[in-house]
Amino acid sequence: MQKFKVIFLPEQKTVEAQKDQTILSAAISAGIYINSACGGDGVCGRCKVILKKGTVITQPNGAVSLEERKNNVYLACLTAIRSDLEVEVPLASRMDLDNLNPQEVEQRLKGLYSETADVLPAETDFKEHAFKHSPFANKIYLDLPVPTLEDSLSDLERLYRELKKITGATVIQAGLFNIRQLGEILRDADWKVTVTLGKRDQALEILQIEPANTIDKNFGFCFDIGTTTISGQLVDLNSGKVLGTKATYNTQAVFGSDVITRIIYAKEASGLEKLHNAVTDTMNGIIRELSAENKLDLNNVNCLVCSGNTTMLHLLLGIDPAHIRKQPYVPTANFLPVVRATEAGININPRGLLYCVPSVASYVGGDTTAGVLSSGIYKHSQLHILIDIGTNGEIVLGSKDFLVACAASAGPAFEGSGVSCGMRASSGAIQKVSINKKLEVSYSTIGNTKPRGICGSGYIELLSAMLSSGAMDKSGKLAMNAPRQRESSNGKEFVVVSKEESATAEDIVITEADIENLKRSKGAIFAATSILVRHLGLEFAQISKIFIAGGFGTFLDMEKAISIGLLPDIERSKFVFIGNSSLAGSKDILLSEQAMHAAEKIARSMTYFELSVDPGYMDEYGQALFFPHTDLSKFPTVKF
Amino acid sequence: MQKFKVIFLPEQKTVEAQKDQTILSAAISAGIYINSACGGDGVCGRCKVILKKGTVITQPNGAVSLEERKNNVYLACLTAIRSDLEVEVPLASRMDLDNLNPQEVEQRLKGLYSETADVLPAETDFKEHAFKHSPFANKIYLDLPVPTLEDSLSDLERLYRELKKITGATVIQAGLFNIRQLGEILRDADWKVTVTLGKRDQALEILQIEPANTIDKNFGFCFDIGTTTISGQLVDLNSGKVLGTKATYNTQAVFGSDVITRIIYAKEASGLEKLHNAVTDTMNGIIRELSAENKLDLNNVNCLVCSGNTTMLHLLLGIDPAHIRKQPYVPTANFLPVVRATEAGININPRGLLYCVPSVASYVGGDTTAGVLSSGIYKHSQLHILIDIGTNGEIVLGSKDFLVACAASAGPAFEGSGVSCGMRASSGAIQKVSINKKLEVSYSTIGNTKPRGICGSGYIELLSAMLSSGAMDKSGKLAMNAPRQRESSNGKEFVVVSKEESATAEDIVITEADIENLKRSKGAIFAATSILVRHLGLEFAQISKIFIAGGFGTFLDMEKAISIGLLPDIERSKFVFIGNSSLAGSKDILLSEQAMHAAEKIARSMTYFELSVDPGYMDEYGQALFFPHTDLSKFPTVKF
Repeated sequence: MQKFKVIFLPEQKTVEAQKDQTILSAAISAGIYINSACGGDGVCGRCKVILKKGTVITQPNGAVSLEERKNNVYLACLTAIRSDLEVEVPLASRMDLDNLNPQEVEQRLKGLYSETADVLPAETDFKEHAFKHSPFANKIYLDLPVPTLEDSLSDLERLYRELKKITGATVIQAGLFNIRQLGEILRDADWKVTVTLGKRDQALEILQIEPANTIDKNFGFCFDIGTTTISGQLVDLNSGKVLGTKATYNTQAVFGSDVITRIIYAKEASGLEKLHNAVTDTMNGIIRELSAENKLDLNNVNCLVCSGNTTMLHLLLGIDPAHIRKQPYVPTANFLPVVRATEAGININPRGLLYCVPSVASYVGGDTTAGVLSSGIYKHSQLHILIDIGTNGEIVLGSKDFLVACAASAGPAFEGSGVSCGMRASSGAIQKVSINKKLEVSYSTIGNTKPRGICGSGYIELLSAMLSSGAMDKSGKLAMNAPRQRESSNGKEFVVVSKEESATAEDIVITEADIENLKRSKGAIFAATSILVRHLGLEFAQISKIFIAGGFGTFLDMEKAISIGLLPDIERSKFVFIGNSSLAGSKDILLSEQAMHAAEKIARSMTYFELSVDPGYMDEYGQALFFPHTDLSKFPTVKF
Repeated sequence: MQKFKVIFLPEQKTVEAQKDQTILSAAISAGIYINSACGGDGVCGRCKVILKKGTVITQPNGAVSLEERKNNVYLACLTAIRSDLEVEVPLASRMDLDNLNPQEVEQRLKGLYSETADVLPAETDFKEHAFKHSPFANKIYLDLPVPTLEDSLSDLERLYRELKKITGATVIQAGLFNIRQLGEILRDADWKVTVTLGKRDQALEILQIEPANTIDKNFGFCFDIGTTTISGQLVDLNSGKVLGTKATYNTQAVFGSDVITRIIYAKEASGLEKLHNAVTDTMNGIIRELSAENKLDLNNVNCLVCSGNTTMLHLLLGIDPAHIRKQPYVPTANFLPVVRATEAGININPRGLLYCVPSVASYVGGDTTAGVLSSGIYKHSQLHILIDIGTNGEIVLGSKDFLVACAASAGPAFEGSGVSCGMRASSGAIQKVSINKKLEVSYSTIGNTKPRGICGSGYIELLSAMLSSGAMDKSGKLAMNAPRQRESSNGKEFVVVSKEESATAEDIVITEADIENLKRSKGAIFAATSILVRHLGLEFAQISKIFIAGGFGTFLDMEKAISIGLLPDIERSKFVFIGNSSLAGSKDILLSEQAMHAAEKIARSMTYFELSVDPGYMDEYGQALFFPHTDLSKFPTVKF
């Protein structure tokens, strides 16, 4: 295959390109982001470039006017490289990487969080089961038999014949874009090509046909799109290896901290668009960073699997979530179709696909489905519980015979949001704390660096330590006039780390308001779990295992979580902390069609239990607003 | 449903629109053609309009810049009407209806043909069989159950549940565009909507969701795209009634009169694009005229079925046909995927679908498949022959057990092209001729109007009459010094109609060169038919029926066609003239999924016999260059 040098102006960035590679694809390799709303089909006309030097060959389209043609304007997506080139990318064709005003976003996020982005802790080792490897996008290398007068099948049917033989698929689809290139590519590549296949409903779709063998370059991303935090993982689709993980706050938060305020904001002028752009900007940032760190060409990122709550998935696809909050609480869709990632504004290979993990109901989303999948609770004959601690806490109880889910509005406190010194579980977050009777604090941080704030699991330890040391009473009031206690403009607070020790040069504190916030979060989750168990006529003792999921720490001390009344007081060995189960489930789906089908079955079979219709819920919640609980008989082993 | 008035500027054209109808759809109703390359998905950004007055609601998209938004620029496809409006459609957003220079085209076509466009004769009554009614695009009216807390299925799954119940389909797909509108439309229409479903591979695709019951407005077009002539038919998809038929010359002819020269031209700079635009311009013209005559909104034209030879179908979809003419003569695809009509540049409902009837091989196209389908020769146990007389003559021999096809390069003479006074079979065409021994000519024309030229069947009668009257000898030479014979700058010619009688005020003549041309055409077809019969070890006597297809006349006198040696000299009752069988087949497919599947089966099972590899073909062709034939024993009943 011939290679050519393409220089992009005005940057003067140079990349090597293959004969017949499109200018769009070469630009992506050069890290130049050109608009391409249609996925490189030549219909959107937004990727216009000016040819300054060299020879190209282009395809029919109506987007370039006669006048423009005279001035050497071409569509980057339809124009194939046939010599060394110099190409100017005008400003109008460049992608607006930040649809929101960046200054405004930064400022507003600073007001909300103590930090903005960092690397997640390494994946936990928990993995109960595995699925058959069969990634969402797959590459197949073909050495096709050359046509003869005897075997004169057309190019496309020849390709299908081989692909059907290899994959066993009955329906394979190809769009016009690939068919238009087919004759040329097959002959130029001497009938040796690599086909990228994506899964769309019951069919396989040809995403891309490349000359020669490129099967080693096939990557994908999985995402957990939380109301507060967005986590993404770059995965080598051949080996299944995770090449990197990143999490950052969802910039949508500038428009409201919870799902309901965002649904309302979506109705304002351009509201839906701003929310959509905020989530895609956040995701595109993670994709760009992880791809750059791994020196990876975005053309080789072929697919994306996203889990998230129902509202987040609507906003990702630009669907108005209005009816989710209106009786009878019906979303537009629980099962969203596979779309091109570019249709949703995500910048990967312009023909790459995006799959949303199916949701169950308005308040039980694809994140819960993914969590059930990755935890495996749908496979056991014994009863299991999954508690996913996020801005919305979701609780699922079930077995292989049934699955019932409910959702509790826990708030973002355990994600480090809405509390004065909260932060995500990342480098510098305090996650282990003990306090002696003299109220001296010892702690350790993630990464063992200077402390910058407190993450979710750090707060659990802190509350437990404050209770046992007497720094706080069981109602959450701070002890008067004790060391480290003080009054500030924010009310009463307890100094955990003084500014001399802190990485931020400010005291790291917990206020009475923070404690109130955390108490409501833990109370909501405990009450929801209790009501769900009772609703099914069960008792905690009958539960075989409880999986705790969430991105609030790298580990969780169950003893301490029980001591503050977040988790029920049962045998410790029944608890398993499994980290971000939504992200883990979306990774399972990214790597396995079997997992995709299992997720769809889970979403269809799970039933939703609306807590607010249970007359006991508000009572149970009120009783849980105490450390550990108003009714101490429920926590027999907890002694302070 | 609320109605609003939309005024389009600068034309000041006013239409009535429903609440939430898009501006694009209202413009189509107003007969204003706005660019919409993406089919109204909001990705191409080419349908920008300026809102001068009124209230709209729009969807997220990245195509409108902040600056444009300030100036009230909206995408017509994503913007819903919410009050009376005034909307300006800027020049840049208007569809360039003629991609070719119109003057140039007109001038060059004038050089090629004596007329450009006219109405086809009424469909012949031939119809041997019918298929189950199940049109390519179907409308279904739904009165959906309103969601409740007990029946809280999401909007999309609710729609799918009803559609699956009614259609029995297992896979139904919807694109983001429809899903984004769904929540609003369902509630605004009080859960009473009409869904347009199209067939795509094994799945049903939701093309459109409209409020209220609109099932009576569902139309489609079928087309026969010939190298020389393009014929189109507007069909009411509910009743199956043909509302109008038009045929016109394929404007591609300005780039070459046969398939091979066009394939070569496609390799020139912008050649493929020009050929593609020429065919779509011609088709769009027919669509516009027939829709206007029937006072029909293009939004209600939901699909298109196209038959044509393999090269024509490649050019229609913008696929380079280069390899069709290179050994081993392999097309890019015989089975082309269903695409949106707009992807191919055809202006109907922007979400409407286009299906190409599958081809068999490089020189046996979807027109032959459609002809076999509509003639029904694939269903009989006896042997049948189909002879389709076009620029390429295709001959199929077979039964329900096998089908073998071959193609003969007949040239466009019988379509009235490439002969001095030729014209299509339309109003004013001479189609019946007799000449007495004094060489006095009597004739009649289609529509009984003044003669304008001679159509294909007229030439058959004329040649036969010239032979029997002695005006021409059996080699095709004109008698010397006879009445009506003269020398002109074009060589020897015979005056059929003098300029006094002619509608064109010029003599209508046939030259010796014309006769040579027609002789080669009839010779090629006869030789191909003979060789095919012999190749299969058969004789003409064993053939049960011979169907003659083609757009060359409204009727065909078999006796005369045999007398000039176009058709074999066998029992007259075995011949049936069936008109444009390719168009009839594409209409069958438009109206019936059963016909679509039958066509696919026909294309897969038919085998192609390459005439040029038969050592006897050139001999047979040489012998057929005589009226009726060199070997008179083959035409025992022909006496002059």
